[in-house]
Amino acid sequence: MPDAQEFRDDYACLADFVEKALAEAFAVPGPHPAPLVAEAARYSLLAGGKRIRPVLALATARLLGCPPEAALPYASALEMIHTYSLIHDDLPCMDDDDFRRGRPTCHKVYGEAVAVLAGDALLNLAYETMARACLETADGARSVPGGIAGALRAQAEIARAAGHLGMVGGQTVDVAGEGRALDAASLEAMHRMKTGALLRAPAVAAAHLAGAPDAARDAVSRFASALGLAFQIKDDLLDVTAEAAEIGKTPGKDAKAGKTTFVTLFGADGASVRLAEESRRASEALDDLEREGFDPEFLRGLVRYQLERRK
Amino acid sequence: MPDAQEFRDDYACLADFVEKALAEAFAVPGPHPAPLVAEAARYSLLAGGKRIRPVLALATARLLGCPPEAALPYASALEMIHTYSLIHDDLPCMDDDDFRRGRPTCHKVYGEAVAVLAGDALLNLAYETMARACLETADGARSVPGGIAGALRAQAEIARAAGHLGMVGGQTVDVAGEGRALDAASLEAMHRMKTGALLRAPAVAAAHLAGAPDAARDAVSRFASALGLAFQIKDDLLDVTAEAAEIGKTPGKDAKAGKTTFVTLFGADGASVRLAEESRRASEALDDLEREGFDPEFLRGLVRYQLERRK
Repeated sequence: MPDAQEFRDDYACLADFVEKALAEAFAVPGPHPAPLVAEAARYSLLAGGKRIRPVLALATARLLGCPPEAALPYASALEMIHTYSLIHDDLPCMDDDDFRRGRPTCHKVYGEAVAVLAGDALLNLAYETMARACLETADGARSVPGGIAGALRAQAEIARAAGHLGMVGGQTVDVAGEGRALDAASLEAMHRMKTGALLRAPAVAAAHLAGAPDAARDAVSRFASALGLAFQIKDDLLDVTAEAAEIGKTPGKDAKAGKTTFVTLFGADGASVRLAEESRRASEALDDLEREGFDPEFLRGLVRYQLERRK
Repeated sequence: MPDAQEFRDDYACLADFVEKALAEAFAVPGPHPAPLVAEAARYSLLAGGKRIRPVLALATARLLGCPPEAALPYASALEMIHTYSLIHDDLPCMDDDDFRRGRPTCHKVYGEAVAVLAGDALLNLAYETMARACLETADGARSVPGGIAGALRAQAEIARAAGHLGMVGGQTVDVAGEGRALDAASLEAMHRMKTGALLRAPAVAAAHLAGAPDAARDAVSRFASALGLAFQIKDDLLDVTAEAAEIGKTPGKDAKAGKTTFVTLFGADGASVRLAEESRRASEALDDLEREGFDPEFLRGLVRYQLERRK
């Protein structure tokens, strides 16, 4: 068993690595020609999230043999994409949330128009960041084991996970189905798109960057899929058990909105059982990865952290 | 002088080439897992715009020695980015437009939430399309004269033009400054970002795809910058002179909203003089291109078309 403190230190170190890169986002030489959108985007980007997606990307890259430095632009892009989706999801016409990560949401501070544009700016910057990283690889300045084809596969994987077949598709199904009761299969399918796709993408993209063998890429993909679903079930559980101060947003909101969640479907106990099942699936995928000759200790820590987190 | 009918036929042929590619967007084998967002995005994407950005990309690529087929994914991506920006700009929290291209706007038909998501889906798909095209180039399946580095520079150029330093930045300056009077320099700077950047990008991206010499890339960049500003001045003129049926949206809207335009600043006559100036600049850039040994007849036709268009 890995040491819990060691895991936390390692997590903090990877998260800090991303944090420093994100702090540079929207920086330009001289005065910014559109300072308001840059400020609004940075307000949400630098609000101190868990950075789970970029940490997962960097840790998976490292374990499969790609230096975290080389994977950093893709990790940063993943967090920009995640943040844009939060800004847009919080809009009055969507989930209408006033608080996020313990602070007023972007549109509460900057107004709706600038919030829409700040989200758009983050999404464009995410792709510009990846395009420039790929260009560096093509020019020989950013070597990755998977080569330029691996770098481009990583980018395409992330784009697919973010778009109409992934996160955006899932959010549409969620918004369009509001108030309608979902069965377990539909709920799971929606979450696999809405949150699962962008949690699986960091692992699969990292495997492409690392030029990992198919079996290893398949194992990290199964791991991250199970972790992603576990993540959502845990969020649903926290929504009914946690305090606002802990989760940084309004608790009990989903239940009040009449949304189907893993807790409304299975009850808190049933949802906990599903959480344990998905965690076991994630661990089994890591066993397979270990049999392929890789050391997934940090990813095992992520499964444990996920089970125990209180926000 | 090129023949006007010949130009129109050539334009129609290039636009049709893009139209067919766009018609395939969001197609998936089997049923779509989030059909509503795909439908809403296609509703706006296939509403029959002028396709000026993709036509400019294909024509510039062809003239600089890159086959239009090879440039097609970038051309399609440009139109997806343009369409996403229209959907978001039309939202109630932004310009609050009910009609676009002669039809109800996306949010009037599908609601605001789905319209935000349809825009997001288009933006993600634009980048996924370019990432896959670059991957094909890296794998040897889509040869472009500029090679993989040229393909990636094209993608990065488009991303930069779409983002906080280009279109999104300009739209923010426009939205944030609403009701405030702008001077001529600020108005021009705003439009160079808001509409100019995404009209210059097709030409510059095409030059990268073609691996064109620096002097030729610089000439098409100057040409497209001038054309982009001329395009905006013409739009401002049409806003006060055209009929709703002709331009497909509500005329006189800018004036009513108290927006500064080239017409409110310079009057219709003064704006026409500025339009002629920018058209001359565009033509001079094409003279330079001709001296570099390229034949810019189609681009000359674009300048003329731009001066004469009535919608």
